[in-house]
Amino acid sequence: MKLRAEELGLLARGAAVLGTGGGGDPHIGKLLAERAVREHGPVEIVAVGDLPDDACVLPVAMMGAPTVMVEKLPSADQISVAVQTLAKYVGKTPTHIACIEAGGVNSTVPVIAAAQLGLPLVDGDGMGRAFPELQMVLPTLAGIEATPMSIVDEKGNRGVFDTVTNEWAERLARSATVDMGCSAIVSLYAMTGAEIRGAFVAGTLSKCVALGRAIERAQSQHSDPVAAVVDELGGRLLHVGKVVDVQRRTTTGFARGDATVDGLDASHGEVMVLRFQNEHLVAELAGTAVATTPDLIIVLDTESGEPITTEALRYGHRVSVLAAPADERWHSPAGIELVGPRYFGYDLDPIRALETV
Amino acid sequence: MKLRAEELGLLARGAAVLGTGGGGDPHIGKLLAERAVREHGPVEIVAVGDLPDDACVLPVAMMGAPTVMVEKLPSADQISVAVQTLAKYVGKTPTHIACIEAGGVNSTVPVIAAAQLGLPLVDGDGMGRAFPELQMVLPTLAGIEATPMSIVDEKGNRGVFDTVTNEWAERLARSATVDMGCSAIVSLYAMTGAEIRGAFVAGTLSKCVALGRAIERAQSQHSDPVAAVVDELGGRLLHVGKVVDVQRRTTTGFARGDATVDGLDASHGEVMVLRFQNEHLVAELAGTAVATTPDLIIVLDTESGEPITTEALRYGHRVSVLAAPADERWHSPAGIELVGPRYFGYDLDPIRALETV
Repeated sequence: MKLRAEELGLLARGAAVLGTGGGGDPHIGKLLAERAVREHGPVEIVAVGDLPDDACVLPVAMMGAPTVMVEKLPSADQISVAVQTLAKYVGKTPTHIACIEAGGVNSTVPVIAAAQLGLPLVDGDGMGRAFPELQMVLPTLAGIEATPMSIVDEKGNRGVFDTVTNEWAERLARSATVDMGCSAIVSLYAMTGAEIRGAFVAGTLSKCVALGRAIERAQSQHSDPVAAVVDELGGRLLHVGKVVDVQRRTTTGFARGDATVDGLDASHGEVMVLRFQNEHLVAELAGTAVATTPDLIIVLDTESGEPITTEALRYGHRVSVLAAPADERWHSPAGIELVGPRYFGYDLDPIRALETV
Repeated sequence: MKLRAEELGLLARGAAVLGTGGGGDPHIGKLLAERAVREHGPVEIVAVGDLPDDACVLPVAMMGAPTVMVEKLPSADQISVAVQTLAKYVGKTPTHIACIEAGGVNSTVPVIAAAQLGLPLVDGDGMGRAFPELQMVLPTLAGIEATPMSIVDEKGNRGVFDTVTNEWAERLARSATVDMGCSAIVSLYAMTGAEIRGAFVAGTLSKCVALGRAIERAQSQHSDPVAAVVDELGGRLLHVGKVVDVQRRTTTGFARGDATVDGLDASHGEVMVLRFQNEHLVAELAGTAVATTPDLIIVLDTESGEPITTEALRYGHRVSVLAAPADERWHSPAGIELVGPRYFGYDLDPIRALETV
């Protein structure tokens, strides 16, 4: 399977759905990847099951606040330099590139690396969604170390961290990201093919393209694109309404905030509040949580079905809020400890997307 | 020349004089170095002029707030790991260790590295004194890059930075230092022997030992140890008095503050204020600056002549404040731009130690 320029818009759009508000603007992700693929040719996609056991897979991602990423684009070679810096440090030649998370930019940044370096891209990711901190990946649950990792900015500054825990990698890399202007490119979680098979979510890129295609099909057939996404994900519709307030602040390298959505139509009279840190973490109806991390809380434009990232949310947006189940490994005790509501400061047990109907 | 355990106290004490309040507590520096030399044997000292042109010299230092360094000591192998991490990154085998600055801890940290690694130590340093930020070294004026540099903490976290300017190295390493608990060990400014000759102050370690010995001799002969330091440095006595106030805060990885010294004896009726950021930067008498960076502002215990670091200054201390000339390269326009009073936010032209008598 080859990823061609014409599929990149579908990929970025579907990834922004799974990105649950984070992972960066899909339009920017699409434009950057299209340029790379036009210049270097289509990118070969390899199924997780087809990876050689001894493959040297280097994931690559953008780290930082999506509010900044939309204004500060990576430089032409920043993405491949991040991969090359890590490869040189570990003294290995990469055979494959991978996505660490699903997200509008973070599903296409690896496409750019793969195109520029002429390497195949793994059809999978490390989360099955997006999360704000770098230790929040299934490989952490599988005991795989985030470091050595590289971090590179658009000015030419480079760093490598080699830390005692993945939380320390997050801490040091987050400070460097803030210094670098609140967004940077990182390459981390270097894995073998065998490790990828044990720790990744398989098929994420194909799923993103399918999601993007379902939205496009519903748009062209004038059917309900929100329903198409709910069908595709096995999720449920939580709320339909209009954004009436967004509180947003870019602090400690994250885009944090709350959005208030007044109910319309079936949700008339109900008010939903969304709490986010890059990604949506908690959805509350009338002050009571109805969906939480680790399950996916997704905001779509009600009319077009296009995913709306947290940094793009604005007053007046007509939106539909969905919940969908996360990869089951996130619901293990270790998974909940790593990414459950309490980690983010919400004194709540996790609420599953399909728990209360 | 060999540096033996019995000279380390002299070295640390003399370096704390040149450290102008910064560079860490000489007592701690002495204890750490004595342990290393007892365990691994005396350290060979090599004159700058005797270095082979192609020597691979790796300087090593403690970075952070001296207020923290006195409580958080480096781990047994942290110092040599910093050197080895840089050596591995640059792919070279170090032939010599060097001091980047003079200071109670920062003149003995390289002794520890040299003892542990069995390498000779260069008799020189990169400043001829101490300064608070890592780009503030004569090698920067000579166009030598601070990076690649390593940074290592006592928990086992390691990092490498490779930056576009020495100021960027300071910025990224300072944030990492703060994350690592406000003190870390760094190895940076890897240089050849030829580069060391062009960019270093020669003879610093010998000078520190001589300074330490002059203080010790005056103490044992019951002569004036402050006068002995003034003689040895070619400086002058600015003020004699009692510390009546110290404002101190540990912010952004530095120990910053002001100390007020009421005049006694010849200085009776005069009040001196010292402004510091790790090191003393400005000395004011009755609100007027009488000495500034880049020249050395040194605080000694009036009775014993022992140097007092900025983090050890306290109410009631009887102190003598001295000024002494810095290496002449610091008075070049580029030197003043890098470390003059205006860089630190004081709207003053630099005042030379021997300018106003």
